[in-house]
Amino acid sequence: MRQTPVRLGIAGLGTVGIGVVKIVQRHADLLAARSGRPIEITAVCARDRSKNRDADLSGYAWEEDAVALARRDDVDVFVELMGGHEGAAKNALEAAIASGKDVVTANKALLAHHGQALALAAEEAGRVIRFEAAVAGGIPVIKTLTEGLAGNALRRVMGVMNGSCNYILTRMESAGLSYETVFEEARALGYLEADPNLDVGGIDAAHKLSLLASIAFGTQVSFDTVELEGIGRISIDDIRRAGDMGYKIKLLGVAQMTGRGLEQRMTPCLVPAESPLGQLQGGTNMVVLEGDSVGQIVLRGAGAGEGPTASAVMGDVMDIARGTRLPTFGTPATQLAAPTAARANAPAPFYLRLELFDKPGALAKVATVLGDAGVSISRMRQYGHEDTTAPVLIVTHKTTRDAIDHAIARLPATGVVDGDPVAIRIEEV
Amino acid sequence: MRQTPVRLGIAGLGTVGIGVVKIVQRHADLLAARSGRPIEITAVCARDRSKNRDADLSGYAWEEDAVALARRDDVDVFVELMGGHEGAAKNALEAAIASGKDVVTANKALLAHHGQALALAAEEAGRVIRFEAAVAGGIPVIKTLTEGLAGNALRRVMGVMNGSCNYILTRMESAGLSYETVFEEARALGYLEADPNLDVGGIDAAHKLSLLASIAFGTQVSFDTVELEGIGRISIDDIRRAGDMGYKIKLLGVAQMTGRGLEQRMTPCLVPAESPLGQLQGGTNMVVLEGDSVGQIVLRGAGAGEGPTASAVMGDVMDIARGTRLPTFGTPATQLAAPTAARANAPAPFYLRLELFDKPGALAKVATVLGDAGVSISRMRQYGHEDTTAPVLIVTHKTTRDAIDHAIARLPATGVVDGDPVAIRIEEV
Repeated sequence: MRQTPVRLGIAGLGTVGIGVVKIVQRHADLLAARSGRPIEITAVCARDRSKNRDADLSGYAWEEDAVALARRDDVDVFVELMGGHEGAAKNALEAAIASGKDVVTANKALLAHHGQALALAAEEAGRVIRFEAAVAGGIPVIKTLTEGLAGNALRRVMGVMNGSCNYILTRMESAGLSYETVFEEARALGYLEADPNLDVGGIDAAHKLSLLASIAFGTQVSFDTVELEGIGRISIDDIRRAGDMGYKIKLLGVAQMTGRGLEQRMTPCLVPAESPLGQLQGGTNMVVLEGDSVGQIVLRGAGAGEGPTASAVMGDVMDIARGTRLPTFGTPATQLAAPTAARANAPAPFYLRLELFDKPGALAKVATVLGDAGVSISRMRQYGHEDTTAPVLIVTHKTTRDAIDHAIARLPATGVVDGDPVAIRIEEV
Repeated sequence: MRQTPVRLGIAGLGTVGIGVVKIVQRHADLLAARSGRPIEITAVCARDRSKNRDADLSGYAWEEDAVALARRDDVDVFVELMGGHEGAAKNALEAAIASGKDVVTANKALLAHHGQALALAAEEAGRVIRFEAAVAGGIPVIKTLTEGLAGNALRRVMGVMNGSCNYILTRMESAGLSYETVFEEARALGYLEADPNLDVGGIDAAHKLSLLASIAFGTQVSFDTVELEGIGRISIDDIRRAGDMGYKIKLLGVAQMTGRGLEQRMTPCLVPAESPLGQLQGGTNMVVLEGDSVGQIVLRGAGAGEGPTASAVMGDVMDIARGTRLPTFGTPATQLAAPTAARANAPAPFYLRLELFDKPGALAKVATVLGDAGVSISRMRQYGHEDTTAPVLIVTHKTTRDAIDHAIARLPATGVVDGDPVAIRIEEV
């Protein structure tokens, strides 16, 4: 007896869309054996039909319009791989839900901005939205967090989730090049989005973090309250100095529930060089999940690319084929708490780099300002003088961003510090 | 409207069983919000009722017999945490399936020996058997492999899945101690099973590997065909020498499908020191999954202990509560292929350590024997003489176990090699 097939409509035939087509074609038997049902593609759409694509699409109906695709009677699952957080993708996804289709999407921006409304709509219609491919490419982190760790109260979720930023930072270190040079290299290699600020500004990674935070802490997605800082101010000097102190610099996303509310940060951080996060090289992604029972789970894999992202899409498709049906963010959308956003102030050690003028008592003055602000010094290193100033590195004991900012604001008045001190949080991992 | 609860019967109240009780009690609201149904415990059983346990069990019915527990009308999910691959656990699990219960188990030995029969019985009865806790403790590796990577043809599955062995090997290295000394330390610390050969002989880890291989390659569980070698012959000398050549020694499980059939190995291997597997310290577990689309995914976490293992059990319970229903090994048991076992002979580089007598032309004779066996040398290092012999380390180019064995069998006849050469496979990771 032939089982009812699952019929996919794929909107968007870029790298990932074509990757999905290839898997469905190559592994028809394997997918059917594992899910108990044939997985078929019935219709596709993309902006430009005439474009030469690396797959045979002749067996599929072609739609000019994603909304029309989403509404087709012969589509059970609408696979949205168009991108963009407004306009066509949003309209099509809403049309799919309204037409009783399940949805698989890789669109982190759309869910970061409209996740709560879409999840409500899907649940009202009895449909599911799945988005494994939206976060950390091929790493099944949404599944791990939503399902595998469902017995845990989550404590903290962390991740290096933008491969381009990690490529830039590790390349700066290994080649001793400036940010600007490696940024241009990465752009020339096609590693950056058309708007590179999505990558180096941390926006893309912050989209992902906001989705993980919603699942982990049972709160409505709240992208707007992510504290955001890109990697543009990271100098090769800081990378080297941090290395001297045993750290690596990463664009690290951290979400944790504090007594003051949900804290979400996507900012450059120092992490111990010998930790799994510290050892992460190049474009690879890593997510660290901490639960009250499971302790720390680390997941590592390719964060982008045709194969890995298509693998994540297909994992979602297979779950739907097998009858797995969960709320979008793990908890029913009606029960997700409105997030109380906390300013990112959870205690942590900080790394400080100052340029100190060659004056008697200079270091004492700095130490006094720090002490008055309640910041105590764990480790300090002063380098030899370069012209009239000497670099000084300080690793503090645990303190708050507020205390650090307070101290930094008072340093100029000492008259012994040249330029702006650099302060970067050290995340304990 | 109160949803129908999921009622658990827990057989076995050791560390893990009590861990599960604690989670159900502590997180009642969280579990209900996430699954949409209350998770309740109705009945428990264990060998000794009078034993003092770290949880309040007064609200649960007590059964003397696990089979009676498995058959209770007020139990929906039978949670088997008794252990042992014959007898009570097997009888109770079979009784549970026959009585229409779903099963969650942490029993790797039982599934390694009887997985196929149990999966067939469960599918015939329309019930599910889930066993996340059986492999790599808190790491959701069964879920990742079965569901997250369901769109991939798997290429290779690897793992360090016995924390005690990894503790022993990394402790030998860091403290410079012999295997025997650290083995006794580990036993005194309670890190080893009552029968330590389950750990250091690789049996426990091989049970786990055979379960992963079944899911990955769609074959019936075949524990008997795992090539098995424990860590007892690993000397501190080899750990140091391997380190000199840039490697660490791990008890590494590897499963891969070859042209000759399914190859499953649980043996000491060298891995690059700077790889994620090479960097793994102490009792932590790591699993590496390689799929044709996803590339390489690395999962790391606690492989044992109350919290992590109970977390895995609860992940399975939550899936059942949410209505997720999959075949035991991902593919229906009736469609799993009878495994064609291949002798472990997939090409790899090897590490050789020889003690060479101080004779003219000694090294040339060794090189000739290797060359005649088709083994070519990639790197070689000779150390200074100790008494009458000098240690020689060789890293070969890719070759086969057969070729290495052939060469080693001919080395004594050269008259220049003292004692038995050591040969350890280098797994490329």
